[in-house]
Amino acid sequence: MNTLGDEEVARLDAWWRANNYLTIGQIYLKDNPLLRRPLTPEDIKPRLLGHWGTSPGLSFIYAHVSRLIGRTGQQAIYLAGPGHGGPALVAAGYLEGTYSEIYPKVSLDEAGMLRLFRQFSSPGGIPSHVSVTTPGSIHEGGELGYVLVHAFGAVMDNPDLLAVAVVGDGEAETGPLEGSWKGISFLNPARDGAVLPILHLNGAKIAGPTVLGRKDPAEVRSLLEGHGYEVLEVSGSDVPGMHHRFAATLEEAHGKIRAIKEAGWTGARPRWPLIVLRTPKGWTGPEQVDGIQVTGTWRSHQVPLAGVKENPEHLALLEQWLRSYRPEELFDDSGTPVELVRSLAPAGELRMSANPHANGGLLTRDLVLPDFRKYAIDVPAPATERAESTRRLGEMLRDVYRDNPDSFRLFCPDETNSNRLGAVFDVSDRAFAERVTDADVSISHDGRVMEVLSEHNCHGWLEGYNLTGRHGMFATYEAFAMVSASQTVQHGKWLQEGDRLPWRAKVPSFNILLTSTAWRNDHNGFSHQGPGLIQVVLTQRGDIARVYLPPDANCLLSVADHCLRSRSYINCIVIDKQPQLQYLDMDAAAEHCARGAGIWSWAGTDDGSTDPDVVLACAGDVVTMETVAAAQILRERLPKFRVRVVNVVDLMTLPRRKDHPHGMSETMFTELFTDTVDVVFAFHGYPGAIHQLVHGRPDADRFRVRGFIEEGTTTTPFDMTVRNRVSRYHLVMDAINNAKRLPPGATELKEWCERKLAEHAEYVVEHLEDMPDVRDWSL
Amino acid sequence: MNTLGDEEVARLDAWWRANNYLTIGQIYLKDNPLLRRPLTPEDIKPRLLGHWGTSPGLSFIYAHVSRLIGRTGQQAIYLAGPGHGGPALVAAGYLEGTYSEIYPKVSLDEAGMLRLFRQFSSPGGIPSHVSVTTPGSIHEGGELGYVLVHAFGAVMDNPDLLAVAVVGDGEAETGPLEGSWKGISFLNPARDGAVLPILHLNGAKIAGPTVLGRKDPAEVRSLLEGHGYEVLEVSGSDVPGMHHRFAATLEEAHGKIRAIKEAGWTGARPRWPLIVLRTPKGWTGPEQVDGIQVTGTWRSHQVPLAGVKENPEHLALLEQWLRSYRPEELFDDSGTPVELVRSLAPAGELRMSANPHANGGLLTRDLVLPDFRKYAIDVPAPATERAESTRRLGEMLRDVYRDNPDSFRLFCPDETNSNRLGAVFDVSDRAFAERVTDADVSISHDGRVMEVLSEHNCHGWLEGYNLTGRHGMFATYEAFAMVSASQTVQHGKWLQEGDRLPWRAKVPSFNILLTSTAWRNDHNGFSHQGPGLIQVVLTQRGDIARVYLPPDANCLLSVADHCLRSRSYINCIVIDKQPQLQYLDMDAAAEHCARGAGIWSWAGTDDGSTDPDVVLACAGDVVTMETVAAAQILRERLPKFRVRVVNVVDLMTLPRRKDHPHGMSETMFTELFTDTVDVVFAFHGYPGAIHQLVHGRPDADRFRVRGFIEEGTTTTPFDMTVRNRVSRYHLVMDAINNAKRLPPGATELKEWCERKLAEHAEYVVEHLEDMPDVRDWSL
Repeated sequence: MNTLGDEEVARLDAWWRANNYLTIGQIYLKDNPLLRRPLTPEDIKPRLLGHWGTSPGLSFIYAHVSRLIGRTGQQAIYLAGPGHGGPALVAAGYLEGTYSEIYPKVSLDEAGMLRLFRQFSSPGGIPSHVSVTTPGSIHEGGELGYVLVHAFGAVMDNPDLLAVAVVGDGEAETGPLEGSWKGISFLNPARDGAVLPILHLNGAKIAGPTVLGRKDPAEVRSLLEGHGYEVLEVSGSDVPGMHHRFAATLEEAHGKIRAIKEAGWTGARPRWPLIVLRTPKGWTGPEQVDGIQVTGTWRSHQVPLAGVKENPEHLALLEQWLRSYRPEELFDDSGTPVELVRSLAPAGELRMSANPHANGGLLTRDLVLPDFRKYAIDVPAPATERAESTRRLGEMLRDVYRDNPDSFRLFCPDETNSNRLGAVFDVSDRAFAERVTDADVSISHDGRVMEVLSEHNCHGWLEGYNLTGRHGMFATYEAFAMVSASQTVQHGKWLQEGDRLPWRAKVPSFNILLTSTAWRNDHNGFSHQGPGLIQVVLTQRGDIARVYLPPDANCLLSVADHCLRSRSYINCIVIDKQPQLQYLDMDAAAEHCARGAGIWSWAGTDDGSTDPDVVLACAGDVVTMETVAAAQILRERLPKFRVRVVNVVDLMTLPRRKDHPHGMSETMFTELFTDTVDVVFAFHGYPGAIHQLVHGRPDADRFRVRGFIEEGTTTTPFDMTVRNRVSRYHLVMDAINNAKRLPPGATELKEWCERKLAEHAEYVVEHLEDMPDVRDWSL
Repeated sequence: MNTLGDEEVARLDAWWRANNYLTIGQIYLKDNPLLRRPLTPEDIKPRLLGHWGTSPGLSFIYAHVSRLIGRTGQQAIYLAGPGHGGPALVAAGYLEGTYSEIYPKVSLDEAGMLRLFRQFSSPGGIPSHVSVTTPGSIHEGGELGYVLVHAFGAVMDNPDLLAVAVVGDGEAETGPLEGSWKGISFLNPARDGAVLPILHLNGAKIAGPTVLGRKDPAEVRSLLEGHGYEVLEVSGSDVPGMHHRFAATLEEAHGKIRAIKEAGWTGARPRWPLIVLRTPKGWTGPEQVDGIQVTGTWRSHQVPLAGVKENPEHLALLEQWLRSYRPEELFDDSGTPVELVRSLAPAGELRMSANPHANGGLLTRDLVLPDFRKYAIDVPAPATERAESTRRLGEMLRDVYRDNPDSFRLFCPDETNSNRLGAVFDVSDRAFAERVTDADVSISHDGRVMEVLSEHNCHGWLEGYNLTGRHGMFATYEAFAMVSASQTVQHGKWLQEGDRLPWRAKVPSFNILLTSTAWRNDHNGFSHQGPGLIQVVLTQRGDIARVYLPPDANCLLSVADHCLRSRSYINCIVIDKQPQLQYLDMDAAAEHCARGAGIWSWAGTDDGSTDPDVVLACAGDVVTMETVAAAQILRERLPKFRVRVVNVVDLMTLPRRKDHPHGMSETMFTELFTDTVDVVFAFHGYPGAIHQLVHGRPDADRFRVRGFIEEGTTTTPFDMTVRNRVSRYHLVMDAINNAKRLPPGATELKEWCERKLAEHAEYVVEHLEDMPDVRDWSL
C-alpha cells in the first residue's frame, strides 16, 4: 500500500538521509565534511562520542511528523525520550534552518557544517545529548523516564498543541516512565492538547535487550491498551516500505486525535492513539563490524565503529556508510542542503525546532495576581493567635485559579485538602477523565487541579507546563519531595543552562511548596519526617536556587506572591499546614520577607544599644516557635540576660553575596549576628545546612545549630522537638552555655530546663498509663 | 460455590473480626478494651490517629493466607503495600502470639490488649504505619510504591519462599510501583521463590478515587496481562460469600504457583498468577456518618468517626461498630483470644509474623570472601601507573559470586560492563526470563546479575534481598543515584530504627557503588554530572551512614572488603571507572583505609618536624590527582614551601566523634590538619559537605573547600576541574593565597598558574578550529 507519492517519498527519504549523514558527521568528522576527497584518519575526531543507535529512528519519526505538519498546519513539538540521540535532533534543527538562525556561525554551508560537526561533544561546543542548547527541545536527554510527563504538562491548557513524545525501550523500563502512561486519565480533549506517544522499540539498550523489546507483541499491546490507548503498530526496516507504512499510521493517529478533539468531552475517557514503532537499533548503520552483528543489537548503541582512526578497514567502512546516504544528492556545492531536503520543513514557527511552545518564555504572560495582602491574618500582637497558614495561601491560589483560567495549575499528590489548600476547589475541580460517580466531590473532566498519587507525575507535568510558558505550584509532603528529588535536580540544571542562552526566554519559576513537614508529621511517623529536599536545592547554583521558610501566614503570602512573579528559579517554600502561631501583621511580614531576615526585637531582651549576650536565630515555623518560647523563658527568668532573636525567611541571605546573589551584605550580617557573639541557630532542616551556608562569615564557628537530626516516630509535636534537641528548653540551655556573660540565676535556670526535660521523659514513659491530652503543646 | 467447611468459615471470620476489633481499638480506645461496660468519652483516646480504610482488606487477606499456610506448610511472608494499615498488621502479630513473645508487656490478655491499644500512635509507643517494630514486616508502610520491589528481592534465591504482596490502589499510581510489575521478567521459577501480588482495589485514596479503581475492569485486566500475569479476580463485600470466593481464588493462585515451580524453567517466562481483589474501602465500618456515605469512599481512609469524644451519636456509632464484631465471642474472660481465633495461626515460624525471612538477620551468613589483596594492582611508585580501578573490583566480585552462589547479587541499571564490573559475567549471566536470542551475550534465565534500566527496581530488589539476609551491591552512575535517593533515605530510616530493636538481628549492609562520576562524565554532559547522593547520605544518622572515597584500586578493594563484611549500614563508595592514577601499594592502601585518612608524605614537602605552610587535603579520585599534581608543581617550583598532602578515604573521619562514631580523635585531627594552618580541601562532591563535616573542629573557618559547583557540560576531564575551580592550578593559587608564610617566587608561580588557565581558556575557544587530542590530560 503506497500512501505516499514518489516525490513525497523522495523528499522524506532525502531529509532522513541528510539527517543521518549529519548525525554520523557529528560523531566522527573534524574535517572533510562533504567527503569531497577520500576519508583519511586526519579527518576523524580525536575522541569519538555520541549515540548512534537511537538516532536514525528519531530522525525517521521527525521527518514524518514534519510532513504531517506541512500537510495539516498542526502545531507540534517533538520530545525525544532517548535524548542521547542528540545529534539527530541537532541535525533536524540544522536542516530546518533554525540552528543557523540561532547560532549564525553554524551556517547552512560547508563551513557551517564543519562547525556543526566539530562543536558536537567538544569543549566549547555542545553537549552530546538533546539539551537546553537544542532548539525545539523542552526535554533534556539525560536522565531517562520523563518524556511523557513533560509532554502531558506541555499540552495541558494548550488545546491546539500536539506533543509527539518518543519513548525509548530502555527508558520504558524506568518507574517514572511506566507511571506516566496514565496521563490520558487526566486529559480533557476539549481543553487540552494531545500527546502522541511513539514507543520506539529497537530492542536493546546499552548492553542488552529490553523487556518490552523481547515481550510478545501481543503482551505489549495488551499493556498499552490497559493504559487506555488505541495501539497502532509499524515494524520493519525496508525502505521505502517503512515510509509508506509509517506515513499512513501517523496520518491515522492524527486523524483519530482530530476526531477525539472535535468530539470534545463525550462522557468517557477517549482511547487516544499510540504508535509502537519497531525498527532495528542503529538502522541503516554498518550491519556487521569485524564479523560481528552490530545493527539491531546493543552494539550499535554508541559508536559502532570505534577504531576508525587506527584501523583502515573501519575507516573504509565508515566512508562506505557515509557515502551510502549519497551526500552529493543532498548538499549542493557550497554545502547547503538542496531544495528537496529543505522543502520538507514546515514554514516558520511551525518547524518543530522553532515552535515557540518549545521556548515557552516567549509565550509567558505574567499571572494576573490578586493583592496578597487581602488574605492577611489579623495579628494584633505577635505570638498570640493560631491559624493554619497554608489555608490562607489556598484562598489566594483560589483567586489565582479564577483569574488565570488557562495559565495556572496546582499539582499535588492527592493532598490538596490535606495541605489546607482546598479553597481552590471553589473554582476548579480536580482533573479526572476516568469514571466519576455522584458521590465524588470536586472532581470532573473539567477540573484543572492536578492530583495523582505520584510525585513524579506532578513534578514532571509542572515542568512541562512551565517550560511551555505557564505557571504553577507543586505542593507535597516535605518528606516525599525526595521521591522526585532527581527531577528537581535535573530541572534545575535545565534552568541553570537556559539562563546562559540569550535566545531562551525566561520561563515561570518552578515553585515547590513543602508542607506537612517533618516536625508536624508526629502523627505519621518517621517515614514521613525528612527535610531532605532543602539539602538538594542547596546544591544548585545560586542563580536559580531559592529556599524560603516563612514562619507564619502573612510571611507565606508575601513569599508566595514573590515566587509567582519570578522567572526561571527553583523556589522551595517550606511551611507546615497545622494551626500555628502567627507573629507578624501584614506590613511587618512584607517588610521582613523583603529583607529576608531580621531582628524580632519584641521577642528578645536586646535593646540594640550594644551587642547582646547571645543571639537566638531561627528559620522555619516550628523552630521559630521554640525559639520565641525560649526567648520568653529567658526574658521572664533571666531579665538581665540580653537575648536577640533573629528570624530568617530567605535562607539564601545567609551565604556571602559572592556565593549567592541573595546573600546579605557584610554590614547587615554584622547588624543581625554581630561579629563575635555566639549564635544558637534553630533550623527547620538538617543542621549541616546552616554550617555550610554561613561558612566564610565572621567567625562562623560561633554558630551552634540545632535542627532535625533524624530522630522521629509517631509522637507529639513537642516530643519531636525534644528528640531532636531543639525544644525551647534545649535552646535556653544552649543560650546559657554559649553566652560569654551570665547573670545570676543562669545555673538555676539550666537546672530548671533539665527538670522540665526530665518531666517530659517521664511523661512519655508514663504516657501509656495515663494518656493525657497530647495535643497540648502551647507556649 | 462453597469452598470452605462451616468450621473453616467460622475460624476465618472469627480471626478477621478479632483483627478488625483490635484495629479499631488501637485507633480509638484508651480504656474499656473488651467493652465490658458501655463506652464513655473517657474511654476514647485524646487524639485519634490511624488509617482504617485499608485495614479490613489487609486483615482479610492475611487471614486467608494464614489458612493457606496451615493447609500447605508454605513458607510465606506478607508485605503490606498500603502499610498505613499498620494496626491490622500489628493486630495480626498479636493474634498469632508473636507480638507478646517479642514485647512481653503486650500480653495476650486484657492488660496486654489495653497496652496494645494505648501504645498505638502514642508517644513512647509504636508508629501508626507498618514499621520496623512490626514483627513479620520487611516493608515500611510510609512512602508508597516499593512493595513489589521488596517482594521480588525477598524471593530471589529463596526458592521455597512465597511473598504475598498487597498493592493498594493509591500506591498503584506511583511510578516506582508501576515500574515494578516487571519483576517476573527477571524471575526464575526453579531458583527463585514466588511473588503473589494482590492488587487490592478499594477505589479511593486519601481524598478521591483512584485511576485503577475507576477504570473498566477489562482495562485493568489487560494492563496486568500485558505485564505478563494471569489475572484472577474477586469482588464483593458479602460474607461469608467473600470467604468462599477468596479462599478458592487463593488456592487456585497457589496451585498455579506450585505448578509453575514444579515445572521449573520451560523455556519461556511463566504467566504467574495475580489476584485483583475489589472490596469497599473501610469494609465492615460505619456505612454512613451524619447522613454521608463513608464506607466505600475516601472518607473512610483515616478515622471515619472523628467526633466520638464530643458527639454522643458518634460515640454510640463507634460502640455499635465495635460490638458488631461480637468481641465476647472472640476473647475469653481474661481477654485472651479464644481457641477458635488462635487456631487459624500456623505453627511457630510458619506464622507470617514470626517467619525468619522477615527478620533476615537471623538467616544472614557471612559471605565467603576471597582475600581482597589478591586483586591488588602493583604500584611500584605512587602516581605513575594508570588503571581502571573498578575493573579490579569486578574481578573480586566475580569470585564473590562464584563462592556465594545463593547469597550475593549485583544490581545495576544496565551498566555492569560500562562500570568495568563485567568480570562477573565469567561466572553468572544477567538474569532475564523474557526471550533470549542466539546473538545475546551473558544473559539467560539462569543468570543472577540483575540489570534493569530502573534504579528503583535495582535499589528495591537489593533492599528486599538484604532484609531477608543476603548480601549485595547496587552499582550506578553517580548522578542517577538521585533517582532512587528517597529509597536510600527510607531504607536508612529502616536500618536506623532496626538498630534500636534488640529482636531485629542485623542484616547485611546496603552497599552503593557510585561510579561513572561527575568528574568523568565529561563525555555525557551536565545531566550526568551530580554528586548529590553524598549529601543525602550525610543527612542520615551516624550509626548507619558511611561514605568512602577510595582514591585508587587498592583502596577500593580494601574498602569493598570492609563493606561486604559489615552489617546494617548504608555504605556509599564513590570512585570512577575510567583509567586513573594509582597511588598506594596494597599494604599501604589497607593501612590507609583502616585509618580512614592520612598524610601522603611522598606527595608533599612537609617533613613533619613542624607545621607546614599549608595543608592540601583531598577526598575523591579525580580531585586527589589534582591535589597531587598541585603539590608536585609546588614541590618543583617552590621547593622551600612546606606543603602537606592529606588524603581522606573515609569521609566520616572528619566530624567529631560525638557526631559520628568514625570521627577521628582530636589528636589525630591535629596531627593531620594542625590547629591553625589553613587547609585547602579538594572534594569530590559539593563543597558544603566538608564545611558541615568539619564544623566544631579547631578553627573550622580555615578550611577552604573546592568541589563540584554545578559547572558541567560535554567537555574534557581536565576542563571539568577548571570549570569547577578545583584544577591543579587553582589549588596551587589557593595554597599560596592561604599560606601564612610565602617563600620568594610565590607571586611568579601564581602568575604562571593564571597563564596556564588562560591558555586553557584559549584552547577551549580555539578547540573547534584545531581539535587536538583532548584525551591528553596527564600529570
